[in-house]
Amino acid sequence: MTEITPGFDFAVSIDCVLFGFDGTELKILLIERNEEPFKDWWALPGNLVDHDESVDQSAQRILKELTGLSDIYMEQYYAFGDVNRHPQGRVISVAYYAMLRLGGDKPLKPLSSYAKKAQWVNVASLPKLAFDHQNILNKGLEKIKRRIKHLPLAFELLPEKFTLTQVQSVYELILGKKLDKRNFRKKILSFKVLKELEEKQRGVSFRAATLYKFDKRKYNKLFGKEISF
Amino acid sequence: MTEITPGFDFAVSIDCVLFGFDGTELKILLIERNEEPFKDWWALPGNLVDHDESVDQSAQRILKELTGLSDIYMEQYYAFGDVNRHPQGRVISVAYYAMLRLGGDKPLKPLSSYAKKAQWVNVASLPKLAFDHQNILNKGLEKIKRRIKHLPLAFELLPEKFTLTQVQSVYELILGKKLDKRNFRKKILSFKVLKELEEKQRGVSFRAATLYKFDKRKYNKLFGKEISF
Repeated sequence: MTEITPGFDFAVSIDCVLFGFDGTELKILLIERNEEPFKDWWALPGNLVDHDESVDQSAQRILKELTGLSDIYMEQYYAFGDVNRHPQGRVISVAYYAMLRLGGDKPLKPLSSYAKKAQWVNVASLPKLAFDHQNILNKGLEKIKRRIKHLPLAFELLPEKFTLTQVQSVYELILGKKLDKRNFRKKILSFKVLKELEEKQRGVSFRAATLYKFDKRKYNKLFGKEISF
Repeated sequence: MTEITPGFDFAVSIDCVLFGFDGTELKILLIERNEEPFKDWWALPGNLVDHDESVDQSAQRILKELTGLSDIYMEQYYAFGDVNRHPQGRVISVAYYAMLRLGGDKPLKPLSSYAKKAQWVNVASLPKLAFDHQNILNKGLEKIKRRIKHLPLAFELLPEKFTLTQVQSVYELILGKKLDKRNFRKKILSFKVLKELEEKQRGVSFRAATLYKFDKRKYNKLFGKEISF
């Protein structure tokens, strides 16, 4: 038993929202919890901040302990602090997000028994999540929905050479709705930032689609209008 | 004496970074602290989050108690959580910012004895600030420096009709450096989003300058390029 300084009875946690695109599906990284509260539930990788680490350091440690992933640049995007968000008391959760292009990935392997396992799960078929994690995830989704409207994010998620169908998939998955193919193609090509390649898609049995590249220089010229002195 | 749940011995605070432009100077809202630690120091308006309020509610309450200001939309921008940022223990501070056009303002009047007074202070001549508040303020400044490169922020801070000299002032103050007058005018006019008015500046004794208006519709057409479906 220790005396409490008034006000010093909150905890601070980290939650990591990692989005991944594997060429077909938008996924999110979840863990299956092995500890109360919410034992056996699916949750965002998250845990309490320790005394001897900053919140930024904590985010890296927790992601590694619960999923095995390290050296991933995550951006802090919001602190969630509703009164009843945690059953054990006031816990403010600082949320971080990152967007990854999946494929040939490092295996997921929790180093701590706090997580039974870590797994990429389709955003389209999520299980019920622990705590207010659905809310934290929704705010992360809003963030990438806003970012994708300014183009480059979509191309960060795609391979270097891609088909227009793949571009449309990324938009549909992040915006959460089906888009009309003809209108989509017309619009995306109207920005004149996709470079059509001579190459066609390989390994498909039927009508190989044309491949495109994102022309970052042209994008910057057209959209990167900034006042810089 | 109460038993502590492990991990539940952090405190969470709010710090408010309010920028204001009065037509000439870029200012920041500070309080003079009346409590330890850092009694008698200048600081950002900030205090600990209470048990029965969310962090967002807390930001509004604290701003009002320490400065008398209410109903100001503030945006959360970062949670500061370095290990040694507070002498009394681990305190994670959630920072909020807002940009205000000053003039004919509501008077500043702390409602709580926690602040001796509240005052708009020139960013160019800041006193030494309590805690890591200079760092919190710097990160807020970085945020508005990035935002001003996309134009509209500057015009949110200016009156509806303004001179080119005033526009240049806003840029110089936020970017923290002097700009060449001729180059600045050429550049800012090249974006073609300023509408020259028939009117001239009034109440000046010598060579009244032409007034301009920001053409939001034209801006959106030129710069607001977004993919929307």
